Amino acid sequence: MKKLDHIGIAVKSIEEALKLYSGLLGYQSKGEEVLETRGIKVCFLDVNGTKIELLQPVREDSDISKYLEKKGEGLHHLAYSVDNVQEMIDKAKAMGLTTLSDTPKPGAHNTLIAFIHPKSANGVLTELVQHN
Amino acid sequence: MKKLDHIGIAVKSIEEALKLYSGLLGYQSKGEEVLETRGIKVCFLDVNGTKIELLQPVREDSDISKYLEKKGEGLHHLAYSVDNVQEMIDKAKAMGLTTLSDTPKPGAHNTLIAFIHPKSANGVLTELVQHN
Repeated sequence: MKKLDHIGIAVKSIEEALKLYSGLLGYQSKGEEVLETRGIKVCFLDVNGTKIELLQPVREDSDISKYLEKKGEGLHHLAYSVDNVQEMIDKAKAMGLTTLSDTPKPGAHNTLIAFIHPKSANGVLTELVQHN
Repeated sequence: MKKLDHIGIAVKSIEEALKLYSGLLGYQSKGEEVLETRGIKVCFLDVNGTKIELLQPVREDSDISKYLEKKGEGLHHLAYSVDNVQEMIDKAKAMGLTTLSDTPKPGAHNTLIAFIHPKSANGVLTELVQHN
């Protein structure tokens, strides 16, 4: 069965957010990583069965900066592990769902990723992740 | 470690949403339940490690109706399993976080629940669930 890979949460400050996630809830940070091309810093937390990804902008022109400006902090996307992203893109399109691209893009940690548009997914930006 | 209990997603129609979650992603519905007092119908899906809760209004005055009107469909809350909700409320308040109540409320399936306000939780309505 396809696993829920992670839950992305857009935050202004990872450090501030860790007060809740580590301080109150007791989840340990797995370290931070800056994704230069996207202009963001990410921090993964193992939440016992799945992961939370905190996303913080490090540049004003990052997609997360735009998200924070428009919507404020909050739940940003859900990502599911799949065996073959291209097959899932094709299947989604055949079902009439809108994907953000026709082919997979490279993601972090040698993954291939694709997105289903929120308008085809009950308002949820939905990521498909193939771990190689 | 506290487990991520479930991810709540507000939808207009559970039946429509299942096209994505069952049709494309292959998750099986664990059945639907109407929560009369809240005016909503819920459907849980086991997503291999955690659960997704689809929330659909069945009355116009439900909290989910108001949410859909204001924000549209989308990610609604994250819920974490905890051993003792009262202790977590007290700890959250001692940390300066805003909770929606000072004492736990009864939830579905004989649970006790409490919420941390989104303004204290990076924009995420955060539920604490104690399974008895």
